Amino acid sequence: MILDKVNYPKDLKGLKIEELNMLASEIRELIIKKVNTTGGHMGPNLGIIEAAIALHYVFNAPYDKIIFDVSHQCYPHKILTGRKEGFINPEKYLKYTGYTAPEESEYDLFKVGHTSTSVSLAVGTAKARDLKGGRENVIALIGDGSLSGGEALEGLDNAACLNSNIIIVVNDNDMSIAENHGGLYDNLKTLRETGGEPQCNFFKALGFDYLYVNEGNNIEKLISAFNRVKDINHPVVVHICTQKGCGLKIAEENKEAFHWIVPGTLDEKTDNEPAEQEESYVSVTNNYILEKARKDKEFIVLNAATPGVFGFDKNFRQMLGNQYTDVGIAEEHAAAYASGLAKMGAKPVWAVMSSFVQRTYDQLSQDICLNNSPVTMLVHWGGISSADATHLCVFDIPLISNIPNMVYLAPTNKEEHLAMLDWAVNQNEHPVAIRVPSCEFISTGIKDNTDYSVLNKYKTEIQGSEIAIIAVGSFFALGGRLREYLKAKLNIDATLINPRFITGLDIDLLENLKCSHKLVVTLEDGVLSGGFGEKISRFYSNSDIKVLNFGAKKEFTDRIPLEQLYIRYHLTEELMTKDIEKCLNLYKV
Amino acid sequence: MILDKVNYPKDLKGLKIEELNMLASEIRELIIKKVNTTGGHMGPNLGIIEAAIALHYVFNAPYDKIIFDVSHQCYPHKILTGRKEGFINPEKYLKYTGYTAPEESEYDLFKVGHTSTSVSLAVGTAKARDLKGGRENVIALIGDGSLSGGEALEGLDNAACLNSNIIIVVNDNDMSIAENHGGLYDNLKTLRETGGEPQCNFFKALGFDYLYVNEGNNIEKLISAFNRVKDINHPVVVHICTQKGCGLKIAEENKEAFHWIVPGTLDEKTDNEPAEQEESYVSVTNNYILEKARKDKEFIVLNAATPGVFGFDKNFRQMLGNQYTDVGIAEEHAAAYASGLAKMGAKPVWAVMSSFVQRTYDQLSQDICLNNSPVTMLVHWGGISSADATHLCVFDIPLISNIPNMVYLAPTNKEEHLAMLDWAVNQNEHPVAIRVPSCEFISTGIKDNTDYSVLNKYKTEIQGSEIAIIAVGSFFALGGRLREYLKAKLNIDATLINPRFITGLDIDLLENLKCSHKLVVTLEDGVLSGGFGEKISRFYSNSDIKVLNFGAKKEFTDRIPLEQLYIRYHLTEELMTKDIEKCLNLYKV
Repeated sequence: MILDKVNYPKDLKGLKIEELNMLASEIRELIIKKVNTTGGHMGPNLGIIEAAIALHYVFNAPYDKIIFDVSHQCYPHKILTGRKEGFINPEKYLKYTGYTAPEESEYDLFKVGHTSTSVSLAVGTAKARDLKGGRENVIALIGDGSLSGGEALEGLDNAACLNSNIIIVVNDNDMSIAENHGGLYDNLKTLRETGGEPQCNFFKALGFDYLYVNEGNNIEKLISAFNRVKDINHPVVVHICTQKGCGLKIAEENKEAFHWIVPGTLDEKTDNEPAEQEESYVSVTNNYILEKARKDKEFIVLNAATPGVFGFDKNFRQMLGNQYTDVGIAEEHAAAYASGLAKMGAKPVWAVMSSFVQRTYDQLSQDICLNNSPVTMLVHWGGISSADATHLCVFDIPLISNIPNMVYLAPTNKEEHLAMLDWAVNQNEHPVAIRVPSCEFISTGIKDNTDYSVLNKYKTEIQGSEIAIIAVGSFFALGGRLREYLKAKLNIDATLINPRFITGLDIDLLENLKCSHKLVVTLEDGVLSGGFGEKISRFYSNSDIKVLNFGAKKEFTDRIPLEQLYIRYHLTEELMTKDIEKCLNLYKV
Repeated sequence: MILDKVNYPKDLKGLKIEELNMLASEIRELIIKKVNTTGGHMGPNLGIIEAAIALHYVFNAPYDKIIFDVSHQCYPHKILTGRKEGFINPEKYLKYTGYTAPEESEYDLFKVGHTSTSVSLAVGTAKARDLKGGRENVIALIGDGSLSGGEALEGLDNAACLNSNIIIVVNDNDMSIAENHGGLYDNLKTLRETGGEPQCNFFKALGFDYLYVNEGNNIEKLISAFNRVKDINHPVVVHICTQKGCGLKIAEENKEAFHWIVPGTLDEKTDNEPAEQEESYVSVTNNYILEKARKDKEFIVLNAATPGVFGFDKNFRQMLGNQYTDVGIAEEHAAAYASGLAKMGAKPVWAVMSSFVQRTYDQLSQDICLNNSPVTMLVHWGGISSADATHLCVFDIPLISNIPNMVYLAPTNKEEHLAMLDWAVNQNEHPVAIRVPSCEFISTGIKDNTDYSVLNKYKTEIQGSEIAIIAVGSFFALGGRLREYLKAKLNIDATLINPRFITGLDIDLLENLKCSHKLVVTLEDGVLSGGFGEKISRFYSNSDIKVLNFGAKKEFTDRIPLEQLYIRYHLTEELMTKDIEKCLNLYKV
């Protein structure tokens, strides 16, 4: 094995092209096996192996700075920079993150997981170098759909006039996570079709020097190209055409499905009859969408890339036809686009992942909420999780709920979710966001006939006394379990409340609780700081009612098991009860 | 006067070119007089008069949809759409906002004040039209620096592949608020120099049809161009070259100074000896910056357009030389650029207006805070104000302070501000934001020797009992006045605390308050929802201490006088004292 001799980039320097090619094969095999075992980004990493080898062959990291965009395509880079054990030794498979991480290695400059950041980070890195009088090459590796994000475009605009060394490697695999969309990608296509010499070149128009590499999975060609731009004294774009999933036939042929895979995907026996899908919040949402779209031609669904997160598979997208738009990685556009649609009387539903909604705060505020555009947002995956620090989904409540005019709803079961969705889509008074439950699927079997146009009406599910539990959305079931535990442990019949509305207080209900309750407990599946519970604390802060807020701490957690986080945040019946007991004892008369 | 006969766009239709030209002159005179009286956007509106006339001559608004970007260039449009009284009659000068406002007129589709939104809003508008089977023209008017914003670029990328009518009028006046920056503006320059036929055309590269109009202040030429694209069946860019400040010599020659002017600017006698500037938070900040930059070549200052807001005038910028970057309207890039600079050991200070910091939440969170990059942010203008709804500065505390790792500081006087700034710039542990006070300038004359690396240490300015007032930043003086009022009115010697840190709690100090205080009062110059006070409420929520939070309500206010807002939010000593008295009486034993 060539890889036996390669631990760091310096070990590549003496190798011949044939050896580098063999190394690529070895790395490819490792990645396929490892990713199939642990799950992860398969296609992007298989496509970038040769480029990673060539970059480290030509440039001298960590002196030269290589900055990965999204960084979910950093596996080959990790293998070449002291971390191959994480791909060779199954016991170390989970030791390293799937993203660049400075705490792991000096070869990783930034912790990156959201897209479109590399160019701007590189401009800053290069400018700092210039201030210090350094001579390092600064390389941004961007692609895989990231180019269409506003941050990347702002970065390119600024990079073009840097007047010193910056090398932007555009990894063009003709895909983002799903198909690419937009004029920019049409230009990349034209660039490919003309061998890099079209009538109009997007990068040259911005003022970049430009180099086209047709065979982006050919190490020799890549080395030659990178050697040409090494130590260049001005901004240059190196456009390399790679194949997503390269070397794994099924991934080459199913680029979207193999962008990110779950463990064991390659082992599964392909059965032509897929098992009947169980009902889920995604499936009931999407059934509603298809039915609504069929009946109402002004109903339209949109998302900014990652359609798989929302269960918008190819078939679903085709069925919606012109009533569906994937705007690509462009969340700011998505928000304003939705506002434009709504203002003209169309009925837009915009699906977005909690972690990515933060890519568009100003547009939520100005384009949607200030204009009171009746956009419906479906916020998916909101909640505490064992995710990477880059993909946490705990910040959407503070982010969305503190914007005026927004109505943020938290359904607790299927029937409530569908009733809220139906109301949101058909009304034209408010921007509405719905936090699609990320917990176990619950169906009551009883149609929800609530009129949600009466805002901020909480629902008392069980009337009790002494303690009131206000449990938001995904944590409603936990609230129910806490109630039972309190009964068993302290013989307290607590009141259980489903607030349904995150964005407002039910003043009457909260006032009434004062009569027969001493303590109000809030539960939310997200960060406490700036969230729902604090509003309840504020409401009662000048009364005799005590309040305990349960939720996540303000911190970036990184792949910490969920159970561990629940213990850390006291989100188990037992730990909450201890806190409650302590609080009650303190104020016993 | 031609304008006597013109109230709505229909009144233009029969006019001859000479009459339209006369109309332009009349409108120009009105705008100069009105803006010089009330203050406002002078240059942008003088430049767009002819285009506004030509647009309304050719298209049929409100059937056809004209969407203004930033919309600070909508004055001629307002004059032509039923609102000329607001420019003719001094008594009505303040009746209409300086931005498009659907509540004023059906000719205004969106309420817009932040930049770069028009293209995406237009794509949504056009798509809704297509779903409904309509045939309206949809026109986005963008320019004046807005093109470089990520949202605009995402919008262009998506507009290019709309496959139906969308007309993007690029108002190219060779300026944003200050000079333009970036590859995109270099391309516009090349387009101008080549009469619209350069080697690479940015818009054509994206797939747009393209029309170049050299004389963008020539009504006849504009009418001809707009007629050519009217009812077009595909996306087209009409690039018009206009002169910012057109027709007012001093504004043509001083484009930056005349972008927005204060009342009476044209009346001032030009005195070559400007009066000695009084000290202000801006002046002491900028003196610090110049001194620091001189001594430390790795210190660098950046902003995303609007340098005037920060007092970064031409002279200041020149003195900083390569230690200054204006990235243009590109806040996302600014954040990531600053992070790149900081990671490489440079010392970036990024000045940003409170209202615009919300254009870059994800980059604050991911590029800066997750990476713990020691960037220093100077947040200007934060606080409750009589501003337009589009330019409120009350949301920065919830936005910034709920992000992990961030240290958000609120100085209360000159010495504290400078000590915080100096600490922030020279440390390399934390991202630090400083809320530059927006209140009256206060100097204690006593150097602040606090070690701010010990986080979250509040300062007890006056020790009292019964009531503790925690007054943040700009509202510290108000806290002092409240203290005096409480003494006079209720004979209470309240404790007065300057928290200094917005992002964390001083647990020891807060615990200690429990001994000799019944009530904690918080004051913050921003929205309460998600803000500082709610954290204090949460802290005391399971104790006997009562808390009252004072600050702004979660709402979009629109040009409401500050005094009125202070009364609405109970932000006067008298109103606060009433609330305090009520609270104390309730719980008298």
